[in-house]
Amino acid sequence: MPAPFQHLALIGLGLIGSSIALAVKKYLPTLRISAFDLSETVRQRALDLGLADLVAHQPGDAVTGADLVIMCVPVGSMKAAAESVAGHLLPNAVISDVGSSKAAVAAQLRKALPHARIVPAHPISGTENSGPDAGFPELFANRWCIITPAGNADPEDVGKLSTFWTMLGARVEIMAAAHHDRVLAVTSHIPHLIAFAMMGTAADLERVTQSEIIKYSGGGFRDFTRIAASDPTMWRDIFLTNKEAVLERLQSFTQELSTLQEAIHAEDGEALASFFTRAQAVRRGIVE
Amino acid sequence: MPAPFQHLALIGLGLIGSSIALAVKKYLPTLRISAFDLSETVRQRALDLGLADLVAHQPGDAVTGADLVIMCVPVGSMKAAAESVAGHLLPNAVISDVGSSKAAVAAQLRKALPHARIVPAHPISGTENSGPDAGFPELFANRWCIITPAGNADPEDVGKLSTFWTMLGARVEIMAAAHHDRVLAVTSHIPHLIAFAMMGTAADLERVTQSEIIKYSGGGFRDFTRIAASDPTMWRDIFLTNKEAVLERLQSFTQELSTLQEAIHAEDGEALASFFTRAQAVRRGIVE
Repeated sequence: MPAPFQHLALIGLGLIGSSIALAVKKYLPTLRISAFDLSETVRQRALDLGLADLVAHQPGDAVTGADLVIMCVPVGSMKAAAESVAGHLLPNAVISDVGSSKAAVAAQLRKALPHARIVPAHPISGTENSGPDAGFPELFANRWCIITPAGNADPEDVGKLSTFWTMLGARVEIMAAAHHDRVLAVTSHIPHLIAFAMMGTAADLERVTQSEIIKYSGGGFRDFTRIAASDPTMWRDIFLTNKEAVLERLQSFTQELSTLQEAIHAEDGEALASFFTRAQAVRRGIVE
Repeated sequence: MPAPFQHLALIGLGLIGSSIALAVKKYLPTLRISAFDLSETVRQRALDLGLADLVAHQPGDAVTGADLVIMCVPVGSMKAAAESVAGHLLPNAVISDVGSSKAAVAAQLRKALPHARIVPAHPISGTENSGPDAGFPELFANRWCIITPAGNADPEDVGKLSTFWTMLGARVEIMAAAHHDRVLAVTSHIPHLIAFAMMGTAADLERVTQSEIIKYSGGGFRDFTRIAASDPTMWRDIFLTNKEAVLERLQSFTQELSTLQEAIHAEDGEALASFFTRAQAVRRGIVE
């Protein structure tokens, strides 16, 4: 497959940006990479790690000549990142991102770059680590990447971006931004919110010590801790930009929890067992 | 180390009972094993698998001559299981169990067997599978086993049970039953309750399909699914028997969640970021 682009610009070199750089070097070695990060420390680290052919000191310089620009910044910084490259873009450049909420981000990109060829995307992959040292080229291998083009997007741009992610090892799916946001609220955003809340509960104990929680975390608690390690800024922005879908799902979750709470309070064993049996069936469906 | 007991009786041959049998065969091969299970299918399966030297048709026959009796039944069935062996126990037999809640179970055992040498225990290990075919001898290796003797327990009995679990590979800790119940409410019971509630939320969607949840569960949801597969009856009984500690922790959790919900509603990015930063610190403490 020929490379769908010639020159990639990455704005932001955290876990995702640095992993894209390393995956491109491995799977699309002909692609030129230029990059920018707001943090001078990160820029220096990117040079040391050899993540890009050019690490620019200004975002405008990073995107100059690029036919694919990917914004790899927290979703709350998308607008500022897009504004910082306005006026430096090639007219035919495809502008994309990697944000975990899509409708709000797309609106921000469109506002900042009204004439750009915007094709938002979300590679569903990550680890609990952050920063340019956390990146690795296999991060996207066999993981889904959801592309959420607006109705008026050029099918050729969508096809090229789809090819790009496929060549990085991802499986590509295309859906509407609003639908993406509803799906991810359930499969990712609410689980993270719950994991964060669970850590809060564990921090706030009088008679049980932290060391006891650590010692006995294998009983279930440990399953929650991995995702509670994710970057706080990134998650703040996700909840602020996918507010409606998250609040809707959160309400459903608290209703389920309250049903369980009432059943425990009333010592209604039948209600508990039938709830758990249904839950187990859902889980089986998901795993099989 | 000499074997602390000569004859083990297992009442109940699910995941834990069958794993104890297999671990004893491997690490304490001189110990005679007799066993009983209420289900005839399970008894037949135990014979096929060679789990015990004797698979009895009556619980009383299984405990005859045993100097260690372990009840491996859901905590709600402990009283009935204990009553079923009353009158058949050796006077010096140590009676133990493997239940996940301890204060209520200890009370039930004492009521059913007022003159027995009761030393409750809880091996914190399990998998998402149930039944005699799920057992394996390494289930307890390097996992904690918490022993919760009453104040008037014979230290020699406690020592012998502690040796037994140590020889099966477990690390033994001794604590009061009420404290065990508070610790496990945080580290195991609430995480399970939340995972069950999360499955309920996922089952109840109009615009997102089950296949989409499955497809994109890698974004965090999947972390919850393992523990939601656990046995419904077992968990019903745990919540009913550790009601107070669970409801107390659940209240704390819902307060944390409600703080997050309000912050999202008010778009209070600062509150969210500082909450997540604290949660991340707790998680780091737990993992390191």
